[in-house]
Amino acid sequence: MVSMVSRYESLQNAIEQELEAYDADAFVHIGDRFDDLLRYCTHFSGPDRDYAFVYGSGQSVLCAPRLFGEQAEREFIGDIVRTDHQQNGSTPVIRAIETINELTAAARILLPSHVSHRVISVLEDDFEVCTTDTDFGRAQKTSNERTQIESVQTAAQHGMAHAEAILAETEVQQDTLHWKGEMLTTERLRREVNAVLAKQGVQDAGNTVIGAGRSCSDLHFTGNDEIRTGETVLLDISPRGKSGYYADLTRTFVVGIDTWTRTAYDAVRDAQDAALAALDNGEGTEAKAVHQAASAVLSDHGFAVGDVSVGMYHGTGHGVGLSLHEAPSLSSDELLKAGHVITVEPGVYDPEKGGVRIEDLIMVTQSSYENLTDYPRCLVPSSR
Amino acid sequence: MVSMVSRYESLQNAIEQELEAYDADAFVHIGDRFDDLLRYCTHFSGPDRDYAFVYGSGQSVLCAPRLFGEQAEREFIGDIVRTDHQQNGSTPVIRAIETINELTAAARILLPSHVSHRVISVLEDDFEVCTTDTDFGRAQKTSNERTQIESVQTAAQHGMAHAEAILAETEVQQDTLHWKGEMLTTERLRREVNAVLAKQGVQDAGNTVIGAGRSCSDLHFTGNDEIRTGETVLLDISPRGKSGYYADLTRTFVVGIDTWTRTAYDAVRDAQDAALAALDNGEGTEAKAVHQAASAVLSDHGFAVGDVSVGMYHGTGHGVGLSLHEAPSLSSDELLKAGHVITVEPGVYDPEKGGVRIEDLIMVTQSSYENLTDYPRCLVPSSR
Repeated sequence: MVSMVSRYESLQNAIEQELEAYDADAFVHIGDRFDDLLRYCTHFSGPDRDYAFVYGSGQSVLCAPRLFGEQAEREFIGDIVRTDHQQNGSTPVIRAIETINELTAAARILLPSHVSHRVISVLEDDFEVCTTDTDFGRAQKTSNERTQIESVQTAAQHGMAHAEAILAETEVQQDTLHWKGEMLTTERLRREVNAVLAKQGVQDAGNTVIGAGRSCSDLHFTGNDEIRTGETVLLDISPRGKSGYYADLTRTFVVGIDTWTRTAYDAVRDAQDAALAALDNGEGTEAKAVHQAASAVLSDHGFAVGDVSVGMYHGTGHGVGLSLHEAPSLSSDELLKAGHVITVEPGVYDPEKGGVRIEDLIMVTQSSYENLTDYPRCLVPSSR
Repeated sequence: MVSMVSRYESLQNAIEQELEAYDADAFVHIGDRFDDLLRYCTHFSGPDRDYAFVYGSGQSVLCAPRLFGEQAEREFIGDIVRTDHQQNGSTPVIRAIETINELTAAARILLPSHVSHRVISVLEDDFEVCTTDTDFGRAQKTSNERTQIESVQTAAQHGMAHAEAILAETEVQQDTLHWKGEMLTTERLRREVNAVLAKQGVQDAGNTVIGAGRSCSDLHFTGNDEIRTGETVLLDISPRGKSGYYADLTRTFVVGIDTWTRTAYDAVRDAQDAALAALDNGEGTEAKAVHQAASAVLSDHGFAVGDVSVGMYHGTGHGVGLSLHEAPSLSSDELLKAGHVITVEPGVYDPEKGGVRIEDLIMVTQSSYENLTDYPRCLVPSSR
């Protein structure tokens, strides 16, 4: 549990800094299990209704909701779990106010700017309120967080290997792919992948994007489509582990290669190589330099980049952690830091033909980067 | 698609009523894919970043986020998908303001009270703002919504049948259950259930609660535990379908029955029968009468109910829909209405011994109720 403590210490320092910057006495956040910043502050996976986190006078308190005391004690990384006022029917905001007043003689309190309006409107009666957009440094991962993310990426790789093996085993009947005697559709393939993720103990989180041919151009296709020979099959797998951390892996395969696909695949693979090379110096690299490196290679291969309908019309990557999409974006002016876990995922699409994307998950280090992905890049599927 | 239109018309009527009650000109909501009310307003499953829904002058508009236009066109149940201002880097709030001004000369706008503080603080510069706690009638389901929920419940039943078959096939070695030559733990059983859910095309949503013996008393146990002979194995399966709708199913089994378990099981089964009987008259039944009926039977069987550590320490049920837990609660004074989809799930627990809960999902009708669950209640597991 040493690494959990260190995660907590880094959070505590970040909160203290923010309190000082805003001249506030306590930090408060109230939300439900779908609030990733609250998860970061508590590590509590919580229920689908509101609960409160309070930090003041150097102590952090989780006001656990009724019936969640045991779970809160197991999961909370801070100091104190309070369940003592859980039975009196008070709301999470009222519990937070009680807790603030017990911890510190607070006049001014700080909250995240995305906290709900109804929370702020109650707290404003008792305190001077200010809000912040900070992510409390959660873009930079500790070694324990990296281990969590890497284990989820391993589960994603198992899912990918199963899909690739299925594609390798398919037979072509009248242009469409069949597997085990029945037509293989994107939905059937998705269910197969998701069952492997479940057996690995991670959630597919509704994020298993599988497109075939034209539907590859829809970057978030979770529908049902036939798969034809010569069409790209694009699999983007982003499961979430029990720890709350996501991973992200994309590969593109084709059964029966045509010219467009071969050209697109080579361009995207070279663009990914160039993007990774741009990360060779690690910390201090400008984020958008990675996107620029990928874009330049795609242009050299004859593909447009930017606000286009054919070519690459998305960024090269984003941070991954307790949110699937978090800081830093590879389109930003930000300088990358050691501990940033980011995707590197160039792609090109033609709504008339198909789409190719290849995505690895990497961690920036002091002097370079480490690839958290261990999955070959290969256009023709095979059983592994 | 007729039923989708009727769902939209009922939403439209509810919004119009609320606008009148608040004397407001437009309704606005901004949130991400994890906001169930926004999902209800749009049916758009969206990304994990903010997007806007605007209703005014009888028209509803989804301001779709960049790169989500195609998906929005497929999924939105309202009138207009706007993606035209997606490229200029404007925020969802700015897009909402543009849209409000195009739809209507609005002075006063209405938002849900849980919308984020930062959204309200921008809108306050341009409009008079008021907020509401209404759920826009989403507790009452249309026939199409009922069909969605029922299909997810069927998937849950497949998961339950697989778990029950595994339990029936186990062998006892030194008091613990083994399956296919290896120890069967709650986590191994959970992964098996979740893989079946995935093959059925639904998400386990991190909600597959499986406790054994003492861990049954923790109502939200998703950890790993040995399973011993004579211990209750409590499975609570609450998957989410692609439509966004949840289902909810609980059964309790035991391999090698002891006296406490038999007594507890009979009490819970009888309590569920009494709770269902209390629903015999359908619409107009007081919600808490259902809880009272279950509680009375448990008391007769010698189990305490309420703020206790042994007995039943939770309510008898809750609404299910786009949120796993929504209105109505069976602890409330509310009168039940036709179309309410609710769980009926009495349970008793002894932290030293185990826990038993049985849960069916039912829909209240004008004159009675319909059970959306088709799964036997049986303490001893068997292959089905």
